[in-house]
Amino acid sequence: MGRFISFEGIDGSGKSTQARLLAEALRARGEEVVLTREPGGSPGAEEIRRLVLEGDPDRWSAETEILLFTAARRDHLEKTIRPALARGATVITDRFADSTRMYQGISRGDLSATVDQLHALMIGVEPDLTFLIDLPAEVGLSRAQTRAGVEMRFEEMGLTMQERMRAGFLALAQAPRFRVIDGTGSQAEIAAEILSHL
Amino acid sequence: MGRFISFEGIDGSGKSTQARLLAEALRARGEEVVLTREPGGSPGAEEIRRLVLEGDPDRWSAETEILLFTAARRDHLEKTIRPALARGATVITDRFADSTRMYQGISRGDLSATVDQLHALMIGVEPDLTFLIDLPAEVGLSRAQTRAGVEMRFEEMGLTMQERMRAGFLALAQAPRFRVIDGTGSQAEIAAEILSHL
Repeated sequence: MGRFISFEGIDGSGKSTQARLLAEALRARGEEVVLTREPGGSPGAEEIRRLVLEGDPDRWSAETEILLFTAARRDHLEKTIRPALARGATVITDRFADSTRMYQGISRGDLSATVDQLHALMIGVEPDLTFLIDLPAEVGLSRAQTRAGVEMRFEEMGLTMQERMRAGFLALAQAPRFRVIDGTGSQAEIAAEILSHL
Repeated sequence: MGRFISFEGIDGSGKSTQARLLAEALRARGEEVVLTREPGGSPGAEEIRRLVLEGDPDRWSAETEILLFTAARRDHLEKTIRPALARGATVITDRFADSTRMYQGISRGDLSATVDQLHALMIGVEPDLTFLIDLPAEVGLSRAQTRAGVEMRFEEMGLTMQERMRAGFLALAQAPRFRVIDGTGSQAEIAAEILSHL
């Protein structure tokens, strides 16, 4: 079985870049790496992603959105993650269930318990290792705002929400599978620190 | 609060016709009736319906399909059913959670417990009254096969499956909210019997 690694962090934390740099570093060592992301990561999950993220952001309730993200995660797990792990590849995913715990569980009503129960019932697995790229909320927000993008809905929630998210991620990061990485350094410094954990 | 009524039964049982006839009869008495169906019944749920029912029938696993149907049901409940009940209307739905209990819970692996747990967690409500239109499996199958339709996937499963479905529905119908209706009579006879229960 291969390793299952996730990257988490607030918007603008640089986690997508670091996921890619880690994939490149491991490939340079000759490892097979599957670099993926959520929501999405398999053809079916990408269709569900479009259903959730396009159109009016308020057309789905928090509960329906959690169900759709869980459906997408289940498909991602079955079609992309498990087959790759089974053949011994390293899977690196930009976001996994921790993002749902934060974004849906904290930002839209107190649905944390529901998110956890749904995860236990339909997903069950956690990454072997999760890198939380930690950053002051105002730095993440200012980086996210300079980035042009069509999916600005979460970024639009502002500084207070980013601070709650950061605190929420740091609370989750008490679990042994987490490594908290200081996201304020240069890309190369951060990449080197991440690689030192493997 | 209005009444919440569902119609269930195997394919070809005539439940869609009977749901419509009941809606017409109650409207003729001056009642406000919302006639709806699953999967679907709200704009968002109809989009999820298309995602599940169109394309290759094997592209979703049973678990992902259950999550998608539950997401659609949650949207249907929030956007169509609850608002109608709140203003005192009678809601008549052609299929509700019992169909998921049968089609996904029985036909595709033993997922009944999962379907029930997911329902308890994310849906919670049951109809006040459920009409099960009961019919020998071979009659239902022969009726369903004469009907042209693009969504033949469940009908294609054959007689053995229809018999298991019929038995499964009859087992569910032990719950007090069910009325089991003999579906072999004429449309008018069946409609009259259904109306006599209201």
